[in-house]
Amino acid sequence: MTATPSPASPTADLLARLADLLGPSGILTETSDVAPYCTDWRSLYHGRAAAVLRPASTAELAQAVSLCAAAGVAMVPQGGNTSMVGGATPDESGRDIVVCLSRMNRVRRIDPLDHTMDIEAGVTLKAAQDAAREAGLMLPLSISSEGSAQIGGVLATNAGGNNTVRYGNARELVLGLEVVLPDGSVFNGLRRLRKDNTGYALRQLFVGSEGTLGFITSAILQLQPQPRAVEAALCAVAGAGAALALFSAFRAQDPALIQAFEYMSGAGMDLVTRLVPGTSLPLAEPAPAYVLVELATPRRNAGLRTVLEDVLAGMFEAGTVSDAVIAESEGQRLALWKLREEHAEAQRRAGASVKNDVSVPVSRVPELIDRASAACAALIPGIRPVPFGHIGDGNIHFNLVQPEGMDPAAFLAQDHRIMDTVAAIVRDLDGSFSAEHGVGRLKPYMMPDWRGGAELATMRRIKDAIDPHGLMNPGTLFPPAG
Amino acid sequence: MTATPSPASPTADLLARLADLLGPSGILTETSDVAPYCTDWRSLYHGRAAAVLRPASTAELAQAVSLCAAAGVAMVPQGGNTSMVGGATPDESGRDIVVCLSRMNRVRRIDPLDHTMDIEAGVTLKAAQDAAREAGLMLPLSISSEGSAQIGGVLATNAGGNNTVRYGNARELVLGLEVVLPDGSVFNGLRRLRKDNTGYALRQLFVGSEGTLGFITSAILQLQPQPRAVEAALCAVAGAGAALALFSAFRAQDPALIQAFEYMSGAGMDLVTRLVPGTSLPLAEPAPAYVLVELATPRRNAGLRTVLEDVLAGMFEAGTVSDAVIAESEGQRLALWKLREEHAEAQRRAGASVKNDVSVPVSRVPELIDRASAACAALIPGIRPVPFGHIGDGNIHFNLVQPEGMDPAAFLAQDHRIMDTVAAIVRDLDGSFSAEHGVGRLKPYMMPDWRGGAELATMRRIKDAIDPHGLMNPGTLFPPAG
Repeated sequence: MTATPSPASPTADLLARLADLLGPSGILTETSDVAPYCTDWRSLYHGRAAAVLRPASTAELAQAVSLCAAAGVAMVPQGGNTSMVGGATPDESGRDIVVCLSRMNRVRRIDPLDHTMDIEAGVTLKAAQDAAREAGLMLPLSISSEGSAQIGGVLATNAGGNNTVRYGNARELVLGLEVVLPDGSVFNGLRRLRKDNTGYALRQLFVGSEGTLGFITSAILQLQPQPRAVEAALCAVAGAGAALALFSAFRAQDPALIQAFEYMSGAGMDLVTRLVPGTSLPLAEPAPAYVLVELATPRRNAGLRTVLEDVLAGMFEAGTVSDAVIAESEGQRLALWKLREEHAEAQRRAGASVKNDVSVPVSRVPELIDRASAACAALIPGIRPVPFGHIGDGNIHFNLVQPEGMDPAAFLAQDHRIMDTVAAIVRDLDGSFSAEHGVGRLKPYMMPDWRGGAELATMRRIKDAIDPHGLMNPGTLFPPAG
Repeated sequence: MTATPSPASPTADLLARLADLLGPSGILTETSDVAPYCTDWRSLYHGRAAAVLRPASTAELAQAVSLCAAAGVAMVPQGGNTSMVGGATPDESGRDIVVCLSRMNRVRRIDPLDHTMDIEAGVTLKAAQDAAREAGLMLPLSISSEGSAQIGGVLATNAGGNNTVRYGNARELVLGLEVVLPDGSVFNGLRRLRKDNTGYALRQLFVGSEGTLGFITSAILQLQPQPRAVEAALCAVAGAGAALALFSAFRAQDPALIQAFEYMSGAGMDLVTRLVPGTSLPLAEPAPAYVLVELATPRRNAGLRTVLEDVLAGMFEAGTVSDAVIAESEGQRLALWKLREEHAEAQRRAGASVKNDVSVPVSRVPELIDRASAACAALIPGIRPVPFGHIGDGNIHFNLVQPEGMDPAAFLAQDHRIMDTVAAIVRDLDGSFSAEHGVGRLKPYMMPDWRGGAELATMRRIKDAIDPHGLMNPGTLFPPAG
């Protein structure tokens, strides 16, 4: 493999030409204007950038990329800047140009017969959801950052979230894609076809490529009917094994009814209800673990409540579920979700924590939780494992809160030992070191070990073929060559 | 782009080394043994091959590919040899080596909790379906060649079929993939994870690549629960517009209930019932068009029959459906399906026909049928359009039967004019020239026009990066460079 030359610094001439092309609202070069784009939202990554480009159209972006490519200047795509892994932050060289598509923010068309949405990259996920809803449809992708996250970033990182169990990841929603390639040429794959076997599925390559192969500028997304019936319940269970038995029981009824299936530990629930105001456990007594299940269907009179009650009754009888509460109103449903969603806030209030966004085959979640909890406790006595999340997808946020009374900095000094401990068990269970969040700048060092050999070699070949000068989001996804 | 050197002819030494490696049951070199692998099942493509390799394992295949690659010899992957586009037939040079994985035919594991199947490439689709069924689950992919088609080929061509409307194409079923690359290295991506954002989605690139990037040797497939309730009905409608209105009505109830939604023209139904013994129209009188709808759910007592009857009642009232018959037994259900499945046989009996496997956005199917029928009639008066198929996916088999009494050869002499006429309309409707069948050797010439510019250039870059010596399935998918 040939060594990729280092990207060049933008010259004053290049910046002037970009300013000419994009106009005053299309480029930022003042340090104070550029600064907000150089730090991720959690303030964990700090870079520098020579400029921020804000093109207003695909044509403008294509021309700007051509200019940057000709000058050998590296570009960092940034959507809503909500990456969990520093995937949209420029490096410290000050040579990168950040490119932001937030001005390309039109929902161009929603087709009620095709159930498709033609949308630009800069629309926030929330705005896209709202547009679908106003058209009587649903964009079935929901993540906690949806108010800021933009469609381009959502697709570039193959976002997951609470509804993946029913509708798949972002990848599964994409029918068509338009991409500005690293040389400024435009791949127009904005097709809204459900069947199209005419060559390589390029859109699938760009989805999840974390901005290392080009700029996703717009997409055709597949929509769904809006649910007309929703039922939610919080169930007390003995642990992850029981949670999976409950999942199997609902799935045996009909997997298409399961809109969300979330696991929470007793420890996590205890933190939430003790530390977050306005929360309380709506069950008679605490349990070792909980499941928040949400069933939904667009069909009226589908007997959804009966499904819920029948499955729960069977699981009570089998001893799998010890107690459960069914939401009797939208307010109660939201209160159940609050218990799940405040896990992050509860951890923050409990002190320092280390987060692991990992996945294993669904069947192996109980083993993951048992083994990783024990291993972390052996490492740091008193550590508080707070595993929670999308158990129906095998995707557990295996987070660990510091022991009570421990110095937070001393705890965080061990973050890599903790992460490595969890990772080793995930590895042993044939899992992944990043389920939803991607690789970004945080985890490229793990790639050779986990995705090495022919897999990483093939990824590099593709990267070199499409971005031969290494100008797209350098430092992201791939470890340094060598 | 550098010109790819022509593949070499296998030397006697290479063949001897392959024979040593694979043993007597692993290689065929006698002309009579090799011949069956050199012609496609419809006998439209005739090639020659120096040998047929039949490795028994991924390790054997990897070594054989290494030997061929070192010798610069081209390889043609062949599964069940059921391609509709000549995608598995060697060219006429006699230099290619056909590689067949039919000895790698184990269903290695079905996991009831993960709902996954770990399966080798040489298993037939039918055997895979049966294995899933015996485990109480369903592999939701069904195509007419499923008795012969093998998993490797099904994935390499991203097969579709009757159930795509509900479960997606083959692509959507693949969680993990193992691939022997053109240099003999092995990409082991046999993961059974529903969420895994760790680099490029290589599996998505190999699915649908038609054997031009490597050999798919095994896969992890996502299974579904078996349906426990199925309802089928044949509905008389005024045309494709009414068929889509009916589709929308069912989808508004719940898209997850629609297991199949097939369109048939009055002309096609007339051919079937007149020419195929054992078929008859189960309605009082013929209609301009028909829909075969099949609803299914794994849920007992889901009120499936009520959904069917309610939607049909509403559609009667609206004038969308003029008549319908609901299958009251499994025998009746199969009789309805026979009307759909005998379309190919009826066309054969009616004389020569020209077939077009095209797709358009769902909403544009009526326009496709109207315009393409008129254009073909203008071209050849008396031509009989027989459009049918997966209207719920926008995938119509736009087939045309010769005028009555016309010389079949004279009709077939115009096949390219007919195909071009249909293609031009499909193109105008933002459709695809190959919905399910792929490109193969039949349609590479269409790629520059339909998928040209940055799209085809990017495909070529990927091809050159992964198969730099052009040894995988040469002549397939890509038009000659130049």
